[in-house]
Amino acid sequence: MGLDTETDKIPSFLLGEKDPLFGFNKMIVDATNKYTVAYKPNIAFYECHGAAGWSSLEATVNYIHNNYPDILLIADAKRGDIGNTSKMYARTFLEKMPFDAVTVAPYMGEDSVTPFLSYEDKWVILLALTSNKGADDFQYHNDDGVALYERVLTISQKWGNINNMMYVVGATRAEKLEEIRKLVPDHFLLVPGVGAQGGSLGEVSKYGMNSKCGLLVNSSRGIIYADNTPDFAKVAGEKAQEIQLEMEGYLAGHKLI
Amino acid sequence: MGLDTETDKIPSFLLGEKDPLFGFNKMIVDATNKYTVAYKPNIAFYECHGAAGWSSLEATVNYIHNNYPDILLIADAKRGDIGNTSKMYARTFLEKMPFDAVTVAPYMGEDSVTPFLSYEDKWVILLALTSNKGADDFQYHNDDGVALYERVLTISQKWGNINNMMYVVGATRAEKLEEIRKLVPDHFLLVPGVGAQGGSLGEVSKYGMNSKCGLLVNSSRGIIYADNTPDFAKVAGEKAQEIQLEMEGYLAGHKLI
Repeated sequence: MGLDTETDKIPSFLLGEKDPLFGFNKMIVDATNKYTVAYKPNIAFYECHGAAGWSSLEATVNYIHNNYPDILLIADAKRGDIGNTSKMYARTFLEKMPFDAVTVAPYMGEDSVTPFLSYEDKWVILLALTSNKGADDFQYHNDDGVALYERVLTISQKWGNINNMMYVVGATRAEKLEEIRKLVPDHFLLVPGVGAQGGSLGEVSKYGMNSKCGLLVNSSRGIIYADNTPDFAKVAGEKAQEIQLEMEGYLAGHKLI
Repeated sequence: MGLDTETDKIPSFLLGEKDPLFGFNKMIVDATNKYTVAYKPNIAFYECHGAAGWSSLEATVNYIHNNYPDILLIADAKRGDIGNTSKMYARTFLEKMPFDAVTVAPYMGEDSVTPFLSYEDKWVILLALTSNKGADDFQYHNDDGVALYERVLTISQKWGNINNMMYVVGATRAEKLEEIRKLVPDHFLLVPGVGAQGGSLGEVSKYGMNSKCGLLVNSSRGIIYADNTPDFAKVAGEKAQEIQLEMEGYLAGHKLI
């Protein structure tokens, strides 16, 4: 579940609290944790409030880590820079904060990614084929029949393994999941784009599921902003349960539960 | 000049200050501003201190903006995400903080870049061919004779123009600058990698300079960590002046001054 928490979108009665973003997240997490395997704060939404936003982010991830320690924490940060700088970004999310994973952009190649892989029991989630329209601009750039996103999937397997690396593949690209599974049969995939962006959980499960499930399917706005009355958390819980039950059906269909 | 300010590398007598990163930056800026056209804080180095780091960053950019308003402020952030998220990143750097420009990663394409272009008199600095070894992994991916970095240079010209877009081309890739200038004759280029990374200012100027100079050449560690005694700022000023004088020679050689 994505925590793309925005001042403009949370119920207005929360704005009087000392830390509205954390207040909202806490209530959402308390209502949805039973139906959720991972929380994914979108760093942009905190960073845009400066130091105060970083405090809200820290409060949120510490709260989840302390109260629901079995739930995976993903920093959706899309970072990536030369080695000595990526090392600082890795330290930020994987050392200073209790994130288990961080999304990383591949454009700058190996030394921009490997610093994130130096932490035990932590994960890099590398962008491969993203859910947005702009994915068409460069990700299909084709070298001798190999699209850029395929090259990312292939080359990066030399840097990490199935226990420290996942890939982002957008739910809006479900038709590509069958081919992608040939390149990365065993890796987990983080699949955003279900819900507000229009991707289908059924299609994603049909083409992307492997023998261990292998999918982390994300929904953000469709859950957290399902309601903005004082009942918002309860409604978010219902919405999360709805998606969890749909996923349960696909897992049963694949004889995984 | 890059402000890659690190607690481990600044003179230890500054560590007793309330905000050592800002204290260091202030002294560096006061000593170097005469020789500098732009300051480029590397966001990773602040972010890794959480909320406190963001306060140091904010103090630094506000100080520069208020005291040296003619100097360009570049957020070296390498951000880029789907449209609604890039909009938040753009707001962070170009609206909430007085940055004039922000570095952006192109992997996710048009809608990940255009939100940064919606601010008047602000700049996107898009990654094209970077200075690090990992640039070889994907940036040369070749589709019918067009390398990925060349496609980035070509396609992105539909999104922005010479007044709101620059490109990152690493100084360590100086041999490519002549070809790159054919694709982007009039755009400014931000050229990192001179100094600690081994790039040559002479080579960069020879192949990359256009009729309006068109180059912002960055040095970070080579200047700010030139000395770590109480004289560090004075030495940084001398180092900055040395590079400025070298650049002055190349500008004169091109009859630009």
